Amino acid sequence: MEKLEEKTLDSSAIFSGRVISLEVHEVELPNGRKSTREIIKHPGAVAIIALTPENKILLVEQYRKAMERTLVEIPAGKLEKGEDVMDSARRELEEETGYVCDSLEYVSGFYTSPGFADELVHIFYASGLTRKEDSAPLDEDEFVEVLELTLPEALEYVKNQKIYDAKTVYAIQYLQLREAEKKK
Amino acid sequence: MEKLEEKTLDSSAIFSGRVISLEVHEVELPNGRKSTREIIKHPGAVAIIALTPENKILLVEQYRKAMERTLVEIPAGKLEKGEDVMDSARRELEEETGYVCDSLEYVSGFYTSPGFADELVHIFYASGLTRKEDSAPLDEDEFVEVLELTLPEALEYVKNQKIYDAKTVYAIQYLQLREAEKKK
Repeated sequence: MEKLEEKTLDSSAIFSGRVISLEVHEVELPNGRKSTREIIKHPGAVAIIALTPENKILLVEQYRKAMERTLVEIPAGKLEKGEDVMDSARRELEEETGYVCDSLEYVSGFYTSPGFADELVHIFYASGLTRKEDSAPLDEDEFVEVLELTLPEALEYVKNQKIYDAKTVYAIQYLQLREAEKKK
Repeated sequence: MEKLEEKTLDSSAIFSGRVISLEVHEVELPNGRKSTREIIKHPGAVAIIALTPENKILLVEQYRKAMERTLVEIPAGKLEKGEDVMDSARRELEEETGYVCDSLEYVSGFYTSPGFADELVHIFYASGLTRKEDSAPLDEDEFVEVLELTLPEALEYVKNQKIYDAKTVYAIQYLQLREAEKKK
């Protein structure tokens, strides 16, 4: 919709870090007035919904510095430069959980915080999981604890806000919906 | 889990804007090594799943500067300082769509991008909608186009990536699940 467009009048690069960068754009609004937009650039990420051979959901607990607490999330990670999203999903699954999968199915993608960031997360459903003994190591600044939960247990974690992030509540709903479809 | 904790050794405030601020923390990792974390602070937000009297989903299209495109999203907005989340949800629903609601039910909350931001979105389900003639105005830098879609139409929008953000794909799934529960 062209009439909603905001034209860039000027932009400043404020910060460029290891993961994100920050820009401030001066924009012309649809009514001709001016405003500013604060924008975070992010490389994008993948996240994996995966059930173990025992039909449990694979999750990882990790410390999230932005909230100063741990969260229980589906395995996920940033895209590496030039990396294919499917390769990335397989890599993250193995690095974070020690599992490899037979097949990967694309579920959905979404921007996590469209109001201020361009982070796009690609969600996959992995099946045919097997544990690998000598799995690929984690990034050197990553420390995670693997959890395997049944769907009712995961719903309890959502209720208690231990599972409390967008991609993981989406994943739990996706599995609930899958269950509901099966029962039809 | 204490063993996953990252201790703050130092923190620098890099930027403080209208909406977000950016900090860089120097941390001590669980293995004693050092790393840095880039953190975005955000006031938090509310988002509203609402069906019109015609059983259509209320959505708004708006330009998202971070992606340089429009997205179709459920009504949402930032929390104002000290504002109650329910008041905020009612306010945003009215400002963005011109509808007021009889009742609001808390659905869920989630961090949108726990890897780098503390943004927490609270999702509500609004019912008993009525159109208000002289509704509260939008913020002066907000321009939105209201859409009303059936669930199958919304699923088509997801497929075409016109609906492409976390809270809205979550909302669509929530409504699908509600439908599936009803059919039981």
